[in-house]
Amino acid sequence: MLTVNQRTYQPPRQPTVVVCVDGCEPDYLAQAVAAGRMPWLQSALAEGTGLVADCVVPSFTNPNNLSIVTGAPPSVHGICGNYLFDTASGTEVMMNDPKWLRAPTLLAALADAGHSVAVVTAKDKLRRLLGHGMKGICFSSEKADQATLAENGIEDVPALVGMAVPDVYSAELSEFVFAAGVQLMRTRRPDVMYLSTTDYVQHKHAPGTPGANAFNAMMDRYLGELDAMGCVIALTADHGMNAKVGLDGRPDVIYLQDWCDRAIGTGRVRVILPITDPYVVHHGALGSFATVYLPPDQPAAPIVAQLRGLRGMELVLERGAAADRFELPADRIGDIVCVSERFTVIGTSVARHDLSGLDAPLRSHGGISEQRVPLVVNRKLANVDPNRRWRNFDAFDLVLNHLQ
Amino acid sequence: MLTVNQRTYQPPRQPTVVVCVDGCEPDYLAQAVAAGRMPWLQSALAEGTGLVADCVVPSFTNPNNLSIVTGAPPSVHGICGNYLFDTASGTEVMMNDPKWLRAPTLLAALADAGHSVAVVTAKDKLRRLLGHGMKGICFSSEKADQATLAENGIEDVPALVGMAVPDVYSAELSEFVFAAGVQLMRTRRPDVMYLSTTDYVQHKHAPGTPGANAFNAMMDRYLGELDAMGCVIALTADHGMNAKVGLDGRPDVIYLQDWCDRAIGTGRVRVILPITDPYVVHHGALGSFATVYLPPDQPAAPIVAQLRGLRGMELVLERGAAADRFELPADRIGDIVCVSERFTVIGTSVARHDLSGLDAPLRSHGGISEQRVPLVVNRKLANVDPNRRWRNFDAFDLVLNHLQ
Repeated sequence: MLTVNQRTYQPPRQPTVVVCVDGCEPDYLAQAVAAGRMPWLQSALAEGTGLVADCVVPSFTNPNNLSIVTGAPPSVHGICGNYLFDTASGTEVMMNDPKWLRAPTLLAALADAGHSVAVVTAKDKLRRLLGHGMKGICFSSEKADQATLAENGIEDVPALVGMAVPDVYSAELSEFVFAAGVQLMRTRRPDVMYLSTTDYVQHKHAPGTPGANAFNAMMDRYLGELDAMGCVIALTADHGMNAKVGLDGRPDVIYLQDWCDRAIGTGRVRVILPITDPYVVHHGALGSFATVYLPPDQPAAPIVAQLRGLRGMELVLERGAAADRFELPADRIGDIVCVSERFTVIGTSVARHDLSGLDAPLRSHGGISEQRVPLVVNRKLANVDPNRRWRNFDAFDLVLNHLQ
Repeated sequence: MLTVNQRTYQPPRQPTVVVCVDGCEPDYLAQAVAAGRMPWLQSALAEGTGLVADCVVPSFTNPNNLSIVTGAPPSVHGICGNYLFDTASGTEVMMNDPKWLRAPTLLAALADAGHSVAVVTAKDKLRRLLGHGMKGICFSSEKADQATLAENGIEDVPALVGMAVPDVYSAELSEFVFAAGVQLMRTRRPDVMYLSTTDYVQHKHAPGTPGANAFNAMMDRYLGELDAMGCVIALTADHGMNAKVGLDGRPDVIYLQDWCDRAIGTGRVRVILPITDPYVVHHGALGSFATVYLPPDQPAAPIVAQLRGLRGMELVLERGAAADRFELPADRIGDIVCVSERFTVIGTSVARHDLSGLDAPLRSHGGISEQRVPLVVNRKLANVDPNRRWRNFDAFDLVLNHLQ
């Protein structure tokens, strides 16, 4: 038995794979199954277990991947966005460095306990966080050709996978993750594997459309191969995905820095968009969650009251209430947290968002409206109450502790 | 000036058309505009006014159409569903009879004030309610060939429109409404026209898909013709529309009568689904809103508490709280009101829903998740605050009182 972040896990008894499908709104699976494009998933749902779970809000990639591999919310592991304002240094930084991590991962603990562990992620930004302190294999599709035994526990990855390194903006970047997972299972049979994709496709294609169904059909084929090799598989997501457009089909944006500049004075407030990462062409850094740092002499309450009155704003909370409600580290989320509605995103200033790369109506995430995610296991489970509030970070608990 | 249901309206100064597009989730328009399929709407949004409004919950056809033509919520006009339990007679009945109407319509008042008024609705079920007490033209596509001067103020409708009466389950049933509106405007130029379609297409096709875009392109052409004739046009909807399926693509249903039978005893509770109407093939009478009538000896509170714990249930309220929150007539909504979530519907008993007619993954409405609707006017308006909570039943107020 292994205890990590106050949860106890039994050791894996068969090869165990947890898959985090980036941006996998449940409807993607539903529509693809209904169209006959996911025969493996259809049978996994019939013969295994299909739950719908809540992800962590902000419904972004880093906080949720870290929640899944720690089994805990951001209040425990500390990763509350892809991007934050570091109050200590007074700078805005990417949250990719393991120095931000406040809790050990279950992956590292399993490796320390003698189990072989492999991690494959699409983008390199997540690799160091997921692999922190972990002995084993850990690499990204994005930099698969740069993997070394010393740094990644593996080399010559493209040759193993039989694919060239794909473009960072492509469906193939995620396919590479699945193809690598299948080849790793075939050649090395790790005890535990964690696969994490990128949501490039989901940012462009709505559930049931040809682009989305093709992606899910591809995923289904690889998961079927893993299943055929005897793997226990849990499929979940870091967050959902929704259209974020006005009636004219253009992004429906609350430009929050501009609003604060008008309301409180130019430059007195700092608006942080935790969706920000190095790759923003497909969403223009527009998501449904923002944090606001106020000047010391500015009380939060009157600003909160005004922000709540804005069309498209779903929820505005002060720091303490937001930390409680969403289980976030209070020292890293600013004075005010804003969550916009299903069809609305939050930006900083008009001038700071380059939307020229958007070649399809904006789809994005970050809010409560993207909190529902699938949680599927290809086995019947014991003691599973469908009316309980399941979390995506219960995935390892289900596959290690609840198999019938 | 005309005062109806405590709201005051100026008389129409030019031909004025209010269009209620059944099931028009805002994203239908956004995706069709983005795809270049709605050039009239694109220019109306650029040169006129595009708002997003809240419809009435339950987000069903009858309550919302009556709200639009009375300018008032169901607590005023009395129509709180398509279907209700008549406690006086102890029977379940359709709410199509004007005897259920508790308020006059603006349409009747305009006609009484000497303005020419025409109403065209897709299904006949709405016709008597919309036309109650109104002098003028009022007919349905469904029974266009049976219209008489005495009953409908017009005859020989198919010849006027140049279309045969379409099948009740077809996109053409709604096209007939628009085609009739254009011919009425061309030949009789009514002062005020109200057009109301059916959501057959929206129940089958998601926003941005070919079926949905074709419907919206069709609508756009007719609205462009009305605009070219000098009409002021307001476009709104009775409710939105969402996929209502589980991960396996099949309807995600809370069978509430079965649940109550198990919890309280078989047949002791009566569950009413106000979505019920004579035409349920395309949605199986499954929506996201239900009311529950308890036996006199059964307190509501413990049942409410249990129902709130069910997966997929968004909100469960006792009668008084539900009447307050949704502005409903308390004497017509039962002891408990249940609203399910975006992807979940409520049924009665498994055996009472025939889902064999569903040839596409279920899409439906009824809940809070379908409350957002478009509210577009092809004119700039004065004194319009986009942060105000607009309602679809503000449509006549906007076009009669707020033109610049």
